[in-house]
Amino acid sequence: MKNYTSINDIDNINTWIKEAREIKANPFENIDLGKNKTLGLLFFNSSLRTRLSTQKAALNLGMNPIVMNVSGDAWGIEFGDGTIMNGNTAEHIKEAAAVVSQYCNVIAVRAFPSLTDKEKDESEQVLKSFVKFASVPIVSMESATGHPLQGFTDAITIAENTTKKRPKVVLSWAPHIKALPHAVANSFTQAMQKMDVEFVITNPEGYNLSPDITKDTKIFHNQEEAFKNADFVYTKNWSSYDDYGKVLNTDPNWMITKEKLGTAKFMHCLPVRRNLIVEDAVLDSEASLVIEQSNNRTFAAQLVLSKILKEL
Amino acid sequence: MKNYTSINDIDNINTWIKEAREIKANPFENIDLGKNKTLGLLFFNSSLRTRLSTQKAALNLGMNPIVMNVSGDAWGIEFGDGTIMNGNTAEHIKEAAAVVSQYCNVIAVRAFPSLTDKEKDESEQVLKSFVKFASVPIVSMESATGHPLQGFTDAITIAENTTKKRPKVVLSWAPHIKALPHAVANSFTQAMQKMDVEFVITNPEGYNLSPDITKDTKIFHNQEEAFKNADFVYTKNWSSYDDYGKVLNTDPNWMITKEKLGTAKFMHCLPVRRNLIVEDAVLDSEASLVIEQSNNRTFAAQLVLSKILKEL
Amino acid sequence: MKNYTSINDIDNINTWIKEAREIKANPFENIDLGKNKTLGLLFFNSSLRTRLSTQKAALNLGMNPIVMNVSGDAWGIEFGDGTIMNGNTAEHIKEAAAVVSQYCNVIAVRAFPSLTDKEKDESEQVLKSFVKFASVPIVSMESATGHPLQGFTDAITIAENTTKKRPKVVLSWAPHIKALPHAVANSFTQAMQKMDVEFVITNPEGYNLSPDITKDTKIFHNQEEAFKNADFVYTKNWSSYDDYGKVLNTDPNWMITKEKLGTAKFMHCLPVRRNLIVEDAVLDSEASLVIEQSNNRTFAAQLVLSKILKEL
Repeated sequence: MKNYTSINDIDNINTWIKEAREIKANPFENIDLGKNKTLGLLFFNSSLRTRLSTQKAALNLGMNPIVMNVSGDAWGIEFGDGTIMNGNTAEHIKEAAAVVSQYCNVIAVRAFPSLTDKEKDESEQVLKSFVKFASVPIVSMESATGHPLQGFTDAITIAENTTKKRPKVVLSWAPHIKALPHAVANSFTQAMQKMDVEFVITNPEGYNLSPDITKDTKIFHNQEEAFKNADFVYTKNWSSYDDYGKVLNTDPNWMITKEKLGTAKFMHCLPVRRNLIVEDAVLDSEASLVIEQSNNRTFAAQLVLSKILKEL
Repeated sequence: MKNYTSINDIDNINTWIKEAREIKANPFENIDLGKNKTLGLLFFNSSLRTRLSTQKAALNLGMNPIVMNVSGDAWGIEFGDGTIMNGNTAEHIKEAAAVVSQYCNVIAVRAFPSLTDKEKDESEQVLKSFVKFASVPIVSMESATGHPLQGFTDAITIAENTTKKRPKVVLSWAPHIKALPHAVANSFTQAMQKMDVEFVITNPEGYNLSPDITKDTKIFHNQEEAFKNADFVYTKNWSSYDDYGKVLNTDPNWMITKEKLGTAKFMHCLPVRRNLIVEDAVLDSEASLVIEQSNNRTFAAQLVLSKILKEL
Repeated sequence: MKNYTSINDIDNINTWIKEAREIKANPFENIDLGKNKTLGLLFFNSSLRTRLSTQKAALNLGMNPIVMNVSGDAWGIEFGDGTIMNGNTAEHIKEAAAVVSQYCNVIAVRAFPSLTDKEKDESEQVLKSFVKFASVPIVSMESATGHPLQGFTDAITIAENTTKKRPKVVLSWAPHIKALPHAVANSFTQAMQKMDVEFVITNPEGYNLSPDITKDTKIFHNQEEAFKNADFVYTKNWSSYDDYGKVLNTDPNWMITKEKLGTAKFMHCLPVRRNLIVEDAVLDSEASLVIEQSNNRTFAAQLVLSKILKEL
């Protein structure tokens, strides 16, 4: 594999899940695979799980991780083509990506969307510029429109925890006070569309995800109806896609409660705001898989890095 | 040992000192003990010595250190129970501590006090929340009320440098322009109370440390009297405990001078403000042990990590 | 070698170039040289190339790099002698340098000039204080007046790319909107003066570098004249040295164009502002050596660290 920037880079999700679970059972088996290899982790935005789990994955493979907070540690980066750089940016992505490629065998990048300019966000300027101008493989650690390490993690977690051959999985919007990206919801949707599950989405009117993502997945505006017979409820807030980046609805009735959840398992990518997205009673119960999801982040990243290292 | 959060976690300080000095004599002997193990260092506050010495200790044991500046790199953390998280905090400590436990085999935490709310500071909310919600051992890298890696370091340094069976050790307050925590003074006091030394404290009126810490240790408000026949003078500023967090006194007569020190050795945890806490003539003389103290931080941390790793 | 703080620390640049190219051909040959050794990288200023390439060099030698952003991670450092430290600085360089020496076998430091106080900048207070007060070797990662890892890198790159026994090398000033340091231009000049090249400098009037640096190197105020028969054009902006730190000229006619360059190779230390310093057509052409320069940073640093490690 060259790059991992989207759930679409997974050729066979069932094989990948099997391989990731083998890594989880024996995480240090390939400790020599990354010997003398360096993973650069470039953060344009904050990170806890991704920062730690991707480093841990690299270490499990014997790679040397080097972390950079791009904004704080280095220079403002210019992405425009042909720009006369007499403003605030000091280095062009053409040089930045090529230069980091001299020191790192793989580059992982996190860059969130603006949520103000849909077209720009959908162009995935930062991630695609790294793919274009770096001479080494690129891994997305969440970009404007996707979080494929999270989406694959969630697929692993469902496979580990299902008791049915074809479980029902619901992606439910939940309220939040800030405008949040669509990346996690998009990648989760794409991962579920590749798995043998009954997958539906529920969100208020005005909150449908991009039709390029949802495709023929059924969308309910009635949460209760969507939750019927659910085995897994994956919850996430996102801002409006149609009225791009806007918070149109903070209705607390969309919060996930123990009563609504019934016998379903609860999933969330974290960080999660308690008693806004989901009540304490859910997170503090056996029904919550959120910590195991965060654990699986390591093995999702480790499989991706393994596949890349094997083809270096 | 499970956690190291207080000098009280030291079962036998003389044995510990002996073991730490053995590590100092042969720091790489247990380079395989931490193989494939990760130490997470979480900083809610600034750090130089602790940041470097704890990483160095981990490296000497073959561990992989991962450093995070919590405030800058990640999300605001919520500690309240049952809070509706619609404010500035984005992740609850319940998740944060459990999640970091998925990636790190040991977690070290630094979190200073507010110095405005005595009850809250004494509750040690941050440190105790990590102990409660993490599934791996916790090491304090200085909390609201204690700095046990420093206190143990100081005990090692006194043992190395004493020429007497039972030296006289004085903890002396010194002036500072800012309100500083009690943590170092508290842990030093607790360490000295466990050692076979003659230990006294001297500070201006209104600056007595918590009676729960000082217990029956003699406190002098007359610095000169306290210093008589001293073998070691450990100096530190702290803000008032009774009038909590206030700077009541900046009297330069409490500064440590060569004349006052006599033949005693000078100790300070660093960073130290020259010519405010202590005059240049002391720090630049053979009497100063401050650099050796900083060196011993590595071996104090290394012993603590060794004890934890052996029981993982 | 004890310290590497200036191009003057290179005893024989041709031997060094040969040794660095051998390392480049076989970067992991000395992976055991730095075993159990720690490199502390202290940044008082931003960095991308230097941060990554110096870490990579350390890793290639089996060293453990520990990175610190001094301003963000630790305390304000005092450099004054005899200061009563009742202001914003919390730790004196005497302690800071000695303390870091306890944890790191080699210390690398980056500290830019003020560009407001020539005398202070030329005193190299930060770098020289580390040399004076640390007990371990010091490597400059760019100081007020020099960037010797870059200068040596550039010498390697010219040696690799020349087709002539004695190529003509031109250092050309180019316009920039901000006041930039002289460090890169100074070290490049010093490196070229040690090599068997025909070396000239071109810059507008009022922009001559320090005569202590340029010595008898010929300076042209006519860029076109200087460029005649050039094999390598090294470009860099710097602020005025005579009218210290001032931007006197932003004349776009000094920008490097494909036409001006002719058949010469283009060099720049990066980061470079496109279409201000140099037009896209140059950077995007085969004539540009800038990415190979950044690659060679690793091997320049690796040779310097090797020489230091061998004498530890």
